[in-house]
Amino acid sequence: MKKLVNAPRAVVREMLEGLVSLAPGQVLLDGESVVLRADTPSDVRARKVAVISGGGSGHEPAHAGYVGAGMLDAAVAGDVFTSPSTDAVLAAIRAVAGPAGALLVVKNYTGDRLNFGLAAELARAEGIPVETVVVADDVSLHDTVEPARRRGIAGTVLVHKVAGAAAEAGAALQDVLREATAAAEVLGTMGVALGPCTVPAAGKPGFTLEEDEIELGLGIHGEQGVRRVPMQTADSLVDTLLTTIVEDRRITSGDRVVLVVNGLGGTPPMELAIVARRALAALRQGGIRVERAWSGTFLSALEMPGCSLTLLKVDDARLARLDAAVDAPAWPGAG
Amino acid sequence: MKKLVNAPRAVVREMLEGLVSLAPGQVLLDGESVVLRADTPSDVRARKVAVISGGGSGHEPAHAGYVGAGMLDAAVAGDVFTSPSTDAVLAAIRAVAGPAGALLVVKNYTGDRLNFGLAAELARAEGIPVETVVVADDVSLHDTVEPARRRGIAGTVLVHKVAGAAAEAGAALQDVLREATAAAEVLGTMGVALGPCTVPAAGKPGFTLEEDEIELGLGIHGEQGVRRVPMQTADSLVDTLLTTIVEDRRITSGDRVVLVVNGLGGTPPMELAIVARRALAALRQGGIRVERAWSGTFLSALEMPGCSLTLLKVDDARLARLDAAVDAPAWPGAG
Repeated sequence: MKKLVNAPRAVVREMLEGLVSLAPGQVLLDGESVVLRADTPSDVRARKVAVISGGGSGHEPAHAGYVGAGMLDAAVAGDVFTSPSTDAVLAAIRAVAGPAGALLVVKNYTGDRLNFGLAAELARAEGIPVETVVVADDVSLHDTVEPARRRGIAGTVLVHKVAGAAAEAGAALQDVLREATAAAEVLGTMGVALGPCTVPAAGKPGFTLEEDEIELGLGIHGEQGVRRVPMQTADSLVDTLLTTIVEDRRITSGDRVVLVVNGLGGTPPMELAIVARRALAALRQGGIRVERAWSGTFLSALEMPGCSLTLLKVDDARLARLDAAVDAPAWPGAG
Repeated sequence: MKKLVNAPRAVVREMLEGLVSLAPGQVLLDGESVVLRADTPSDVRARKVAVISGGGSGHEPAHAGYVGAGMLDAAVAGDVFTSPSTDAVLAAIRAVAGPAGALLVVKNYTGDRLNFGLAAELARAEGIPVETVVVADDVSLHDTVEPARRRGIAGTVLVHKVAGAAAEAGAALQDVLREATAAAEVLGTMGVALGPCTVPAAGKPGFTLEEDEIELGLGIHGEQGVRRVPMQTADSLVDTLLTTIVEDRRITSGDRVVLVVNGLGGTPPMELAIVARRALAALRQGGIRVERAWSGTFLSALEMPGCSLTLLKVDDARLARLDAAVDAPAWPGAG
C-alpha cells in the first residue's frame, strides 16, 4: 500500500486537522470528528436551521469540504467507510442547532440511518427540532432492490446544496426538509470503477479486477459493484450510465436537469473532461436541457479510479438554490 | 491501460471540447487546440495585456482550467506531454492580444521555450508586443543543474495568477512582465511520485517502481525523477520536500509565503489534506508565515499518484494579486 499517510489509524483525525487548517471558515469541534462553521452563532436563538451531514471517511471532499455559508453547518466524520457514532452526530447537532432546528442529510446505509436517527431522537428529547432526509440516489440496483433500499452516493452533495441554500435564505425547518426531500426524489446517480481502493487500516485492495475488466454500479466503500464488464470506451460507458439513470428517473425530452461528473479519487481531470463531453452531448441529443454541469471530485472512494454521473431534475426554484452563493472549500464556482 | 478515454489519439481534442462545454466563459479557437476567454473583445484596441500559457496536455486542469477573467486569456494545448506548435501559440496570441501586448508564461522545457519563443518573434514582427516569462520552479535538481536549467512544474500556476491579476487590473505589459518575473524568481516546488503514469498513446507506464519504492523530484511527464527512496510516512516526505525548497529558496523565519499542495492526478483529497496538515505545521514551527494555502489538483501528470509542494514568497502587493477575484474554472475560492 502506497499512500501519503502516517499511521493508518490516524488518517481521519489528521485529514480533518489538515482540512480545517486550510479553511479559515471552519473549526473542529473539541474532542469530536466534527467540522463546524467557524461563524456559528454562540447564541442558539440566533441560529438558522442547521444542515448537517456526514458518514464514513474516505469520501473527501465530502463531507467536511461542504461546510460553509450556504451549504452545511456541520459534517460528522466516522472512521474510513464506517458510520459516525450517535454521540458524534448528537454533538454536532448541539454545536450548530437551536430552536430553529436541524436537518440531517443521511446517505442510505444501515449504520448511518441508525446512528443519525438515534441522535435525532436524542436531540428532539432535548428540545431541538430535528428532521432527516435519506438520500438513495444509486440507480444501479434498480433491477434488484426497491428504491428505498438503494445506496446513497455522489448525488448527496446536490441535496446538501439545495438544503443549505434554503436554510441560508431563512427557510423554516419543514420547508428545508420539503425542498431536500423533493430533490432527493428526483436524483439519480450511477458509477463505474476501473479498479479497487485500499482502506489504510486494511492495507490491501477491497477486491481485484482483471486487466481488462471494470465494474458498473460501484460501491463507494470498496465493496463489490453490480456487474463486471469488459473495459470499453469512455463514450460507451457514459451511454450505459446515462441510459440507466434517465430510464430509472423517467427523464424525458424537454426535462431540465443538472449534471455532476464525479471522480472517485484516482481519476484525473483529463478523463473527467472526456466523460463530461460525451455526457453533455448525449443529453442534448436526447432533448434534455442541461442547465448546469460540474466536473470534479465531489465524493470519492479513497483513490478509486472511475467516475459517477448524477442527474437532478430542476425547475427555476431548485436551480436558484443550486446557483446561490456558497463559501465552502469544495463547492465549485459558476457551473 | 484502463482509462476513461476513447481513441488515444483523440484525447486532447475531446478533453478540450469537454472542458469548454463545462465552462460557459470559455471557447475553443476554430481549428486549434487553444482555449480562449469567451469575452475577449473583438476590437484589438480594447484588449488589455493578454496573459497566455500552455504546454503539453496531461497536466489538467492546467492550462485551460485557468482561462478566465483575472488569470489567463488563452491556453495552448499540445499533444500529451508534447509542446504545442509555434503556429498554435501564434494563433492564440493573435486571438487575444492587441496593441497592449501579451505575456507568455512558459514552463522551462526546450520544446516549450523554442515554440513559444518563435511565436513571440513572429507576433512581434506583426506589431504585437510580446514578452515571455520562463518558470523554472523545480528545486529537486538543485544539486545537479544550474537554476536556469530547472524544470517548470506546479508553481507555474501561481505565476499565471500574479500575471493575470496584474493584467486584469490594467497594468502595462512591462509591469505585468516585471511582476511575473519577480514571482518566478522566488518560487520553489518539489514533488514525490508514488507511481508512474501512462501516456494514452503509449498504453503502458513510463517507468516502474518497486512495491515499497517512491521517487523524489518527479518529472511531470512520466520521466524519471531525481532519486528513488523507500516508501515513508507522509510527514517524513513533507519534511524532505519542504527542507529542500526552503533551503534552496533561502526562506527563513519571518518570511511570508503562500503554499500550494498539488495532487498529481491520482491522489485523493484525503491524502492531500494529511500532507497539507504537516506542511502547515512544519512551516509554522519554522517561523515562516503562511499567508494562504491551497490544496487540490492544480497541475497533474495524468493519473500519477503523488504530490508536490510549492512555496512562493509574498509581500502585500503580491498577496493582493493572489487574492484578486478570478473567474476561471480551476482556480479555487478563498485560500
